[in-house]
Amino acid sequence: MISKLIEGIKKKNAPIVVGLDPMLSYVPSHILDKAIKEKGETMDAAASAILEYNKALVDAIYDLIPAVKPQIAMYEQFGVPGLMAFTETVNYCKEKGLLVIGDVKRGDIGSTSKAYATAHLGRVSIGSSSIAAFDEDFCTVNPYLGSDGVKPFIDVCNENDRGIFVLVKTSNPSSGEFQDRVLADEDSTLYEAVGFKVSEWAKLSMDGEYSNIGAVVGATYPRMGEILRKIMPKSFILVPGYGAQGGSGKDLKPFFNKDGLGAIVNSSRGIITAYRNEKYEKYGEKGFADAARAAVIDMREDINGAI
Amino acid sequence: MISKLIEGIKKKNAPIVVGLDPMLSYVPSHILDKAIKEKGETMDAAASAILEYNKALVDAIYDLIPAVKPQIAMYEQFGVPGLMAFTETVNYCKEKGLLVIGDVKRGDIGSTSKAYATAHLGRVSIGSSSIAAFDEDFCTVNPYLGSDGVKPFIDVCNENDRGIFVLVKTSNPSSGEFQDRVLADEDSTLYEAVGFKVSEWAKLSMDGEYSNIGAVVGATYPRMGEILRKIMPKSFILVPGYGAQGGSGKDLKPFFNKDGLGAIVNSSRGIITAYRNEKYEKYGEKGFADAARAAVIDMREDINGAI
Repeated sequence: MISKLIEGIKKKNAPIVVGLDPMLSYVPSHILDKAIKEKGETMDAAASAILEYNKALVDAIYDLIPAVKPQIAMYEQFGVPGLMAFTETVNYCKEKGLLVIGDVKRGDIGSTSKAYATAHLGRVSIGSSSIAAFDEDFCTVNPYLGSDGVKPFIDVCNENDRGIFVLVKTSNPSSGEFQDRVLADEDSTLYEAVGFKVSEWAKLSMDGEYSNIGAVVGATYPRMGEILRKIMPKSFILVPGYGAQGGSGKDLKPFFNKDGLGAIVNSSRGIITAYRNEKYEKYGEKGFADAARAAVIDMREDINGAI
Repeated sequence: MISKLIEGIKKKNAPIVVGLDPMLSYVPSHILDKAIKEKGETMDAAASAILEYNKALVDAIYDLIPAVKPQIAMYEQFGVPGLMAFTETVNYCKEKGLLVIGDVKRGDIGSTSKAYATAHLGRVSIGSSSIAAFDEDFCTVNPYLGSDGVKPFIDVCNENDRGIFVLVKTSNPSSGEFQDRVLADEDSTLYEAVGFKVSEWAKLSMDGEYSNIGAVVGATYPRMGEILRKIMPKSFILVPGYGAQGGSGKDLKPFFNKDGLGAIVNSSRGIITAYRNEKYEKYGEKGFADAARAAVIDMREDINGAI
């Protein structure tokens, strides 16, 4: 699966993924008001509004980017209707030729981790049939439970040609509380120890020069990105934290390998709420999709200029 | 909310929670076959079968226990129909007077963690209305992202009188890969460092003698349970790993405080697939619910005898 992502990045000259994280407050009022008028103040209305917003965004940017990253929490808060909107978003993006990275941060043990992997990347058996549930191409995985939590995902990746990104060093201010702690036995940090494990796991699912087993490292920590780039040479790094969280193009060079590959940078709010940014205000609220397109073009230039 | 759990434990004299983790292979064939006959080999059939299985189990045991712990991964693998069965299971259990611990192991940052907390413990705003999505009483939370990931859950707990259990030391064999690593700066392990944080977070949501902020510590690690019991005196410990994973009653004493409270022990397979256990074979597959009842009674005796 990672080879398909690389192909998309090269074809579109854009190591970029757009986060489809639709807080209801981001949805332009003409879309939300219409949905509430039709369906009342219900989860169904919220789900409809989110889906319409997503589709318009995708229509405006799909030719510029290789992949999207819907954040499932934003859908899960609207219950079953929200998760129907998640499913329809995934399907719509795939119809448009985009790869889908489900930002689900799941992680459990044994048969439970297998069930999560099946839910997001695999096919579940019912009688003699096998059916895909959420059917993303990649998803994000939390490593706190160790190999018992991650290996079932790797198995499902190998069975279905899919990939994962394991959380290593997250972009948030308090990520250091545990991740930066120095380990006594090897004079490395916890995030480095997780990085070493990722580099072992990566060998279990190679696909060309890179592995289907990638990592998440925040743009907000470029020095740590440089260290982790060396620890995990075969893993793609999914880099959140660009834009709204404070990371900028010049911070991103350390995340890439010398081949110009090895990382894909996410922006969510910076793209999907570009219409609220002074820089793109000429588009107005109704022009939110065109504003998103302009912001993707600017982001591509910023990142390609830096690497 | 923890005071309600304590009340239930005292009333039923059972510091026990039953895990509703319905692998499709656990569902007795007369239930599954009927569902497939009616709805074909579909997710809807799987979801119906799971729900019927759960309801029969709950009918047989609800008077014996204070709470259930559905594992959402087992539902999520059946997509939207599976999550409808999860919702209906939660609602059914609440109608029967049970508290519901959603074993969801969510965790993200900032507004995303807030969205997960809202999904599982809170109410989402749509226009001037606020609606609950999955509406559990407690849920489990992954701490890898630090306070940024956990605090939004604590806020939602305080707004809605709910609780969480933070993963500290998990029951699986590889949990030590990261959790047992010794930290250089304070000669403690990572799981102890997480335990210290839980004891800080616990102060932010006290409810009587105990806090709404609890912890998960596996029955398979009783010595670590003893250490963590002291580090987190005000937190209830949710203890998985009893029964099928190898923990037994005598291992559980260290997880409890001197007041006989402070822990609640989970069993999933040991109860819901008791009908396959030689000890309860007289009930047969069709008597799966009666077998579960007998297994709960035996578990209660085993645990109350040990503490």
